[in-house]
Amino acid sequence: MPAQGWWYGNRPLDREAVRVPRTDSKTLDALVVGAGAIGLACAWRAAQRGLRVAVIDREAPGSGATSVAAGMLAPIGEASWGEQALLDLNLASAKLYPGFVAELESASGRAVDYRRCGALHVALDRDESEELRRRHELQGSLGLDARWLRPRACRELEPGLATAVTAGVHAPDEGEVDPRALVAALVAAVERAGVEPIAGAGAVEAILEGDRLAGVRTAGGDELRAARTVLACGWWSGAAEWLPPRARPPVRPVKGQIISLRGPEDEPLCERIVASQWVYVVPRADGRVIVGATVEERGADLTVTAGGVHELLREAYRVLPDIAELEFTAAVAGLRPGTPDNAPLIGHGALNGLVLATGHYRNGILLAPITAEAVAALVAGEEPPPVSEGFGIERFEGVATL
Amino acid sequence: MPAQGWWYGNRPLDREAVRVPRTDSKTLDALVVGAGAIGLACAWRAAQRGLRVAVIDREAPGSGATSVAAGMLAPIGEASWGEQALLDLNLASAKLYPGFVAELESASGRAVDYRRCGALHVALDRDESEELRRRHELQGSLGLDARWLRPRACRELEPGLATAVTAGVHAPDEGEVDPRALVAALVAAVERAGVEPIAGAGAVEAILEGDRLAGVRTAGGDELRAARTVLACGWWSGAAEWLPPRARPPVRPVKGQIISLRGPEDEPLCERIVASQWVYVVPRADGRVIVGATVEERGADLTVTAGGVHELLREAYRVLPDIAELEFTAAVAGLRPGTPDNAPLIGHGALNGLVLATGHYRNGILLAPITAEAVAALVAGEEPPPVSEGFGIERFEGVATL
Repeated sequence: MPAQGWWYGNRPLDREAVRVPRTDSKTLDALVVGAGAIGLACAWRAAQRGLRVAVIDREAPGSGATSVAAGMLAPIGEASWGEQALLDLNLASAKLYPGFVAELESASGRAVDYRRCGALHVALDRDESEELRRRHELQGSLGLDARWLRPRACRELEPGLATAVTAGVHAPDEGEVDPRALVAALVAAVERAGVEPIAGAGAVEAILEGDRLAGVRTAGGDELRAARTVLACGWWSGAAEWLPPRARPPVRPVKGQIISLRGPEDEPLCERIVASQWVYVVPRADGRVIVGATVEERGADLTVTAGGVHELLREAYRVLPDIAELEFTAAVAGLRPGTPDNAPLIGHGALNGLVLATGHYRNGILLAPITAEAVAALVAGEEPPPVSEGFGIERFEGVATL
Repeated sequence: MPAQGWWYGNRPLDREAVRVPRTDSKTLDALVVGAGAIGLACAWRAAQRGLRVAVIDREAPGSGATSVAAGMLAPIGEASWGEQALLDLNLASAKLYPGFVAELESASGRAVDYRRCGALHVALDRDESEELRRRHELQGSLGLDARWLRPRACRELEPGLATAVTAGVHAPDEGEVDPRALVAALVAAVERAGVEPIAGAGAVEAILEGDRLAGVRTAGGDELRAARTVLACGWWSGAAEWLPPRARPPVRPVKGQIISLRGPEDEPLCERIVASQWVYVVPRADGRVIVGATVEERGADLTVTAGGVHELLREAYRVLPDIAELEFTAAVAGLRPGTPDNAPLIGHGALNGLVLATGHYRNGILLAPITAEAVAALVAGEEPPPVSEGFGIERFEGVATL
C-alpha cells in the first residue's frame, strides 16, 4: 500500500490517519473510487449505515472538479427549460443542505462555511434584461422564489453594483459553501466513521467475476474486493480504462477556470452571490471572493489561460467595479464531468456491482447530499430516493458515447 | 554574520559562495547597499578596477524593482519632450549593452538572453494614432531610427497584430534582456571578481565620522567600514532611516504589476517588443511573454490586484488577440524607485563618502551599464562619463522632498 499521506491543499493530514485497509480478511461492502466531494459524501453516508467502506483516489481528496468549484448552491439560478427532473433533484439536494452541513460539522468537528446568503442575478443591457426576464418567467411558472427587481432595488441590496445594471432577480434561498472546507470536513468525518482512505491509489484493473465487478486492483498492486464499487472519479470516470468499454459511462471533461480574490473582511464586495449571464461572483464571509467560471470543451486540458483570466475579470468588473481593488490571489483550471445531457449519473452501472456517482458537471457540490443518500441506499440494497430516479445510465442506451 | 545563502528565485546558490567579508583588518573601498541589477553592476565594475568591494542586501538579489522589470532596452520608445539629457543617458547605456553583456556572459559563464529584437509601437484608434504621430515627429527631430508604418506593414512585421491597428512605429535597434538571468549572471560575476555578497543584511545604522559616512552597521550587528558607500537599494533608498534625514534622497516607491505568460517556443506570439500607449508585450526566445506594466502611486503596496491584472490582459488582448491562448503563469507586483523628475540619481550624495545609484524608475535594467561605469569611476575617485553628469542630487536642492 503506498504510504503517502492524505493531502488537502498544502496541509498534510496526520500520517496516523493513513491506515492499511482491513481487506485481507473480508470483502468490503462498498469501495468508492474517487475522493472528491461526491465520493467522500457517498462513503460517509454508506459508513453511517454500518457498511464496511473504503475510498481510494489516485490524487489528493478534492483535487478534481472540486478544486475549481465555487460552492454555489443555486438550484433556482440553474433552472432551465425542459429540465424539470434535474431541477427537482437540485432543489431536493439544496433542501438537504442545512441538515447535511449540521451533521457533517458535528461529525467532523470542522466548519464548512455554509451560508444561505441568497443570489442576485443581474442584467447589464437590453439583451441581458430580456434573457433575465425569460428566466424569471420560467422560475415563476415553476413556483420558485425569485423576485424581479428594478435597478434601484438591486443597488439597495448590493450597493457595489455597476450603475449599468438594468434589472435583477433576487433568489433569497440560494446559498454557498466552501468546497475546500467541505472536502476537509468530509475527510475528517469519513475517517471518524472508520472508513479507510487510501491516497495515491488509482484503480488500474477491474476484478471481474463473470458479469460481476468484484473490486479493483490499484496502481500499487493491491486488490480491493467489494460487493459494490462506486465510480465517483468525476470526468475520469469516462476514461476508466480499467473498466470494460461497455461499462464506462459517457462522461467527458469540461474545462473550467476560476479566480480567487481577497478583500477586506469588514468591507465586503457584496453580501450575496452576484451573477450575470457571463460570470458569477461568490463572496466568502472572510473577504475572499471566487469568480467563475469558464466552460470550455477542450478535453483534459488544465492550462490556466490569459483569455480565461481576462474574461472572468472583465465580466466581474462589469458587474461589480470595486473588484478592481481586490487582491488577485489565484487562478485555477479544473475539469468537470459532463454527460451527454449534462445531468448526473446516479444509479447502477452496466456491470453487476458497479454503482455510478458521476457526471455532476457544474453542480457536484450542490448535489453531494442527495447523491450520497441515493448511493448509500443502492450499496445497502435499498431503494434510493424517488427524486434521484431517472438519472441512471439507461437514459443513454443507444446513444453514441465518446 | 547571518549565514543565509544567496537566493535567486527558488534556486539556492552554493553555500560555499557565502563568505564572511574580510572587513576586520581593512576598510573596504566601496560598500554597495542593494543587490539589484544596479547595485550588482556597480559592484562588479568597481571590483574590476581592483577595488575592494562588498555588496549587502536585506533580501535576495534582484528581489526589488528588478523582479518586476520586463527587461526592455528601449530608449527610443521612452524618448519624451524636454528630456534630452535622459535620452542621451538611455542611448549611451543601450549602446554599452552588447559589450556589457558579452563581458558579463564571459565573466559569469551564464547567458542573459539579450536580443536586439526591435520594437513596434502601435496605435489602435485615431487618438492613439495622433499621439503616436507626435512621438514619431519627436523621434525624427532627435535623429532616432524610428520608422512610420501603415497598418499593413505593421502586420507584415507582426502577423499576430489585431486588425484594429491603425498605425505603427518600428524602432529596429531596441532590445531586451531577461532581468532574472541578468541578475543571476551579475551575482556569479561579482563572486568571481572576489566581491563578498552578504544576503539578509540590511543597513540599520550609518557609521558617521563628522560629515563623513564611513560605512554601515547591519541588522546582524556587523560593522562594515568603507571609503565610499553606494546607495543602490531602489525605492528603499528614500526610506533609508539609517541615514541622516538630509542625506536621504527624494525617492518614492512607484508600484508596477506585470504578468507572465507562456506560449509554444516554435510559434511565438510576436518576434519583437510590441507596445501600445497602454501596455508592452515582451516576447522571450523560449516562448515566455511578459506583459507590463501598471504605474501606480500607492506607496509601498505590493498587492497584485484584480484591476491590475485585468488592465494588462485587456490592453494586451487589444493589441495581440492570440494572447488569449497563452498560459497564464504569474502576476507580480513590485516597486520602482521614482525621483521627483523620474530621472535617476547618479553621483555623490549629501554626505562625504555617500554615492547615489538609485531612482532609475522604469529604466533600471537599461541604465545598469552606464550607471555602473559612472559609479565605479566615482568610487575610484575618477571622473564619471560626461553623459551621466546632471543626474546628481544637486538638481533637487531646494525642492521639497518626501
